[in-house]
Amino acid sequence: MAETQIRFGILGCANIAHGVSRAMLLSPNTTISAIGSRSLEKAVAFASENHFPESTKVYGSYDDVLDDPHVDAVYVPLPTSLHLRWAVLAAEKKKHVLLEKPVALNVGELDKILAACDSNGVQFMDCTMWMHHPRTAKLKQLLSDEQRFGQLKSVHSAVTYLADDDFLKNDIRVNPNLDSLGALGDIGWYCIRAILWAHDYELPNTVTAFRNPEYHDSGVILSCGASLNWKTDGKVATFCCSFLSNLCMDIIALGTKGNFHVHDFVIPFNEKVGSFYAVDNSKWAERAVGCGPEPGVFKIATDMPQETLMIQEFGRLVAGIRSGEPKENKWPIISRKTQLVIDAVVASIKNDFVPVKVVY
Amino acid sequence: MAETQIRFGILGCANIAHGVSRAMLLSPNTTISAIGSRSLEKAVAFASENHFPESTKVYGSYDDVLDDPHVDAVYVPLPTSLHLRWAVLAAEKKKHVLLEKPVALNVGELDKILAACDSNGVQFMDCTMWMHHPRTAKLKQLLSDEQRFGQLKSVHSAVTYLADDDFLKNDIRVNPNLDSLGALGDIGWYCIRAILWAHDYELPNTVTAFRNPEYHDSGVILSCGASLNWKTDGKVATFCCSFLSNLCMDIIALGTKGNFHVHDFVIPFNEKVGSFYAVDNSKWAERAVGCGPEPGVFKIATDMPQETLMIQEFGRLVAGIRSGEPKENKWPIISRKTQLVIDAVVASIKNDFVPVKVVY
Repeated sequence: MAETQIRFGILGCANIAHGVSRAMLLSPNTTISAIGSRSLEKAVAFASENHFPESTKVYGSYDDVLDDPHVDAVYVPLPTSLHLRWAVLAAEKKKHVLLEKPVALNVGELDKILAACDSNGVQFMDCTMWMHHPRTAKLKQLLSDEQRFGQLKSVHSAVTYLADDDFLKNDIRVNPNLDSLGALGDIGWYCIRAILWAHDYELPNTVTAFRNPEYHDSGVILSCGASLNWKTDGKVATFCCSFLSNLCMDIIALGTKGNFHVHDFVIPFNEKVGSFYAVDNSKWAERAVGCGPEPGVFKIATDMPQETLMIQEFGRLVAGIRSGEPKENKWPIISRKTQLVIDAVVASIKNDFVPVKVVY
Repeated sequence: MAETQIRFGILGCANIAHGVSRAMLLSPNTTISAIGSRSLEKAVAFASENHFPESTKVYGSYDDVLDDPHVDAVYVPLPTSLHLRWAVLAAEKKKHVLLEKPVALNVGELDKILAACDSNGVQFMDCTMWMHHPRTAKLKQLLSDEQRFGQLKSVHSAVTYLADDDFLKNDIRVNPNLDSLGALGDIGWYCIRAILWAHDYELPNTVTAFRNPEYHDSGVILSCGASLNWKTDGKVATFCCSFLSNLCMDIIALGTKGNFHVHDFVIPFNEKVGSFYAVDNSKWAERAVGCGPEPGVFKIATDMPQETLMIQEFGRLVAGIRSGEPKENKWPIISRKTQLVIDAVVASIKNDFVPVKVVY
């Protein structure tokens, strides 16, 4: 099997890289061949703590990872401000790019990254792990079911968690020099992706931010939200993201004939089973004294965690390219659409919450 | 017991009156002593079909009900356009007024109704039945729990149902001469009330309607929504109401330390048990590869349906007034605040979706 395995290099020792590197080791078609950090000591500790293979090279710089000929693909969990530089460099070194979200500070930066991936023939994918859970595919089936869901009318998504004092003092996600998009980039990303996913990636016509975002002393957004409108059928979506509320990971999608609720779409409470609630063709009881049926609970099992499925998919695409298949353009397009909506939210907030048009 | 029972008169034979008249018979402190319809035949059928007591007088007009000295309180399930006339007349005849929602076409009309109730010393209450379910009291406790909920940050409510062809052709709720507020009045009312309830009836600073309401050919709103903002703490609420989506009856309230989801807050799927999902003090697993705990399911049993509890409460207030206690001012104030927000949504829609200030 070893010759078909895609060999990852990891840039940095971010917290998020624990789960993703575990996935690289769990996925049958990938392995980790290098990790680099500005601190060699940190990289050594990270490799040991996460049980990297003996053969993994541990470097004291990111450049060394990119220069390693035994690295096929690079995973970039660096702060967002560093994505442009390191993702472009990785592409130029002919490394396939798996980029943490938010992928860039704005779509202008992302376009440079995507252009570098394009001109160097490498695959690009962002790390929106929940998209790879089989529950997501099941929900997509439901969204497409004319009898059980009908036409999509409304989506609401909320992703929140309560940042503690240490986070609010020290985390990169409240540092305007590192992750200036704050909660919008970190978790609003998931909400916006969920909304676009439910709409088959049809971009909204306008995005209008809600009027009272909350800010860190540093100026970074701690909570915000927006409404999104499509031109046809009265379709509307809303989202809220916040570092200031207890954990919530909701998608609610309402169709003409059915609807579903997911309470943990970003990270399932149970790694092996993703649940959702769905109901269709609800009816009033006689004389309107009741209604039903009660929504059913659906449980979708998965042998592998969603992060592993994501890594496996990325490995499959890279292996395909190496054997002459074309790159998968779906992933860069979806990333770009997500970033466009992020940018529109920022623009609406900066312009007194006016509606901002979204154009691809 | 008979002498302490409050005697209801019912104006009209609306569909909603089936459940509410059942409640009048189930509640130990009330009974039905009269019903009136413009069609005597319809009133006779309604009384028989709903097993009204033999002693119930059946009239061929609303005026006869108001003139009946054996009627203490009047229940008004007439189309909204008729509320001003009949609620004011009822108050002038010294009948206590239980008024279906939406209570009026606008707050100007409502103020005339409330003034009539005030000057005639009669109790006013609207028919927002879910407020009387013990689940609602339990959720209120939770909202006030510093450890399990913390500070309220965000509320989302969606109430929708799919109107069939007959409804869209014939129902009073799509007739601009009868119920010109359409879905906003019929079910947006519940969403707005839920949002105000969660905020301890603190009015929002501004209300901004979403940009693409849907309309019936008659001009009546079939679907709409809005965001509501409070001045402090980044508090935000959103709602969607629609006659064009499958049944949904959501409240989601997010606090700093906990949150809850209700999937059937308007009419519980099970008349004897109201459920909700709640979680607090969620934590990330080590290395952020998971999170928990999973929200718990809470089930609140009730001996009596929520409509019966509503009627019992109204009967209790009326009996109190008859024995010299003051009127309960909470109910008219809550109705008025709900109506103010309804009016603000309408004003925002009419003015190109600008934010509209809400002042009591």
